[in-house]
Amino acid sequence: MKNDRFLRALRREPVDATPVWLMRQAGRYLPEYRATRAKAGSFLAMAKNPDLACEVTLQPLARFDLDAAILFSDILTVPDAMGLGLYFVEGEGPKFERPVRSAADIAKLAVPDMGSELRYVMDAVSVIRRELDGRVPLIGFSGSPWTLACYMVEGGGSDNFSKVKRLALDDPKAMHALLSVNTDAVIAYLRAQREAGAQALQVFDTWGGVLSPSMYREFSLPYLTRIARELERGDAPLILFGKGNAPYLEELAASGAEGVGVDWLIELDEAARRTQGKVALQGNLDPAMLYGSPDSVRARVREALDSYAAGNGGSREGHVFNLGHGLSPDMNPEHVGALVDEVHRHSAR
Amino acid sequence: MKNDRFLRALRREPVDATPVWLMRQAGRYLPEYRATRAKAGSFLAMAKNPDLACEVTLQPLARFDLDAAILFSDILTVPDAMGLGLYFVEGEGPKFERPVRSAADIAKLAVPDMGSELRYVMDAVSVIRRELDGRVPLIGFSGSPWTLACYMVEGGGSDNFSKVKRLALDDPKAMHALLSVNTDAVIAYLRAQREAGAQALQVFDTWGGVLSPSMYREFSLPYLTRIARELERGDAPLILFGKGNAPYLEELAASGAEGVGVDWLIELDEAARRTQGKVALQGNLDPAMLYGSPDSVRARVREALDSYAAGNGGSREGHVFNLGHGLSPDMNPEHVGALVDEVHRHSAR
Repeated sequence: MKNDRFLRALRREPVDATPVWLMRQAGRYLPEYRATRAKAGSFLAMAKNPDLACEVTLQPLARFDLDAAILFSDILTVPDAMGLGLYFVEGEGPKFERPVRSAADIAKLAVPDMGSELRYVMDAVSVIRRELDGRVPLIGFSGSPWTLACYMVEGGGSDNFSKVKRLALDDPKAMHALLSVNTDAVIAYLRAQREAGAQALQVFDTWGGVLSPSMYREFSLPYLTRIARELERGDAPLILFGKGNAPYLEELAASGAEGVGVDWLIELDEAARRTQGKVALQGNLDPAMLYGSPDSVRARVREALDSYAAGNGGSREGHVFNLGHGLSPDMNPEHVGALVDEVHRHSAR
Repeated sequence: MKNDRFLRALRREPVDATPVWLMRQAGRYLPEYRATRAKAGSFLAMAKNPDLACEVTLQPLARFDLDAAILFSDILTVPDAMGLGLYFVEGEGPKFERPVRSAADIAKLAVPDMGSELRYVMDAVSVIRRELDGRVPLIGFSGSPWTLACYMVEGGGSDNFSKVKRLALDDPKAMHALLSVNTDAVIAYLRAQREAGAQALQVFDTWGGVLSPSMYREFSLPYLTRIARELERGDAPLILFGKGNAPYLEELAASGAEGVGVDWLIELDEAARRTQGKVALQGNLDPAMLYGSPDSVRARVREALDSYAAGNGGSREGHVFNLGHGLSPDMNPEHVGALVDEVHRHSAR
């Protein structure tokens, strides 16, 4: 491995500079991504073609000095492989043709076969790993059991998550059955990505933060913890990222995961103090900061780096720089470049 | 006053049962509201007609044993009166014809005259107060300086608040000028509502929770605090409600406001412990709980009531029951009725 800063930081080992990668770093803000997507015809055609998935995965690395690559895919591949029929409507986000709504629907779900329905994902991992040729580590990922359940029950995105919350309230047994099969599937999926070549693994709990604390502790946290405890992953670190997970940092740090990814609703000094070196922390600039000038982007990067160190006894160890959420299509690649440059410049030991 | 539970609870005095009102209690989930709206022709025509505003304000009180009425109006009346041109597009929420985008735009803003541009609001307050005839107290309200600024700069709702955050980053002086004039206007607006007959006042900081802690403490909290300190309000209590305000409860409790309204992302026992009886607390059921069965609604109401008491030394005093956000059009009025009934039934002393 030519650049192992990312893996070393996740083990809380010394590094020469803080590593950085960005959620949705391969995405529509890059003209070369839009060109590949136009060639592929659709998002799903691109994600399901290992060569095109590899092409877009590598694009941001050619532009920016990023310390990790992340598999280009979607968080909803697993329910798609369970037979729900994933599709995309331009400007509306992902949808399922056959959402699950009842205990009977849930009883029919099974862990999909990683070698057939999800073969295209493992093929993409293998191709990307080969093409990376040891430059930086490759991150595999999955949606969290609760976040997958949100899309599976709602049938797509939601403003208020009324259907999935109603199911959790009125039929908690069915809800736990759904979360249980999702957890089995996520574990199998991440293990298969690891075997195909992924060197780190991230779980995206995008919607855990819409739950009250008592519901989060019943419907999301236990399943994240089960993944952290049961997933055989060798030396590949596991990162649990969650929007709105600040209230639960102590519990996530005790889950057994190597890293916890946080959004911008907590300062890193507080996050570091509350996790006390039990895990590496990943994050957490508000992506909207990229709408500011490059100078203000650089200033905010320095603040985040220094905030982490202030909460971590003056040390920058155990920090992976990232955004608190993904990049958006209207962001300026030059500002992204300023961010990546400033992370390394300001944190160089 | 025949029923002063709400005002007594805000003063943390003993009451015979926990008072309850619901954000957006006058709204589209009620068929009688939809009928009045159809008669008025539009939301704004209804809000700007004191008799129709009174009619819809009183509708939920005829159905449910609510302990307060809240003026039917919009949080964006103040920027509309500043000349921004408020309008509504069906299904898209509020928009402004002339958003503010620059320091030059901001320099032109002034506190609107309460006796002319906002006269219709004060007339509505007077009519409602008269029609209520002392049954329950009347709540007046305003958007917070930051939340108004979000709409004023974005020109409407937003997913990522890119324009208002960019202004805050790249021209903080202009941003503070905007927040300052908004604060002056909110103070004048709430004082005028009080003089017209409002017996309690609430500030809605709907979008404070999209900010990082450092930005919240720079762009929202100081202006909420200034309102709490400078607003002359006699014996009318002030409630500061904020979505996502849980990280700042200690600071809000020290602001000088009589009440703090919280959403469902914190349990009330923790909120009560952290505010230590310095303020009354209002909240905080997840509105999505209303999608569950009436029995599950009642169970969640009991949990919230008991959680508050557990964090408040076993006492229910100082609690105003509410949702953590507003009611939605697809909610079932019968479930709302079960909620209101259970609050009083379970908390009766």
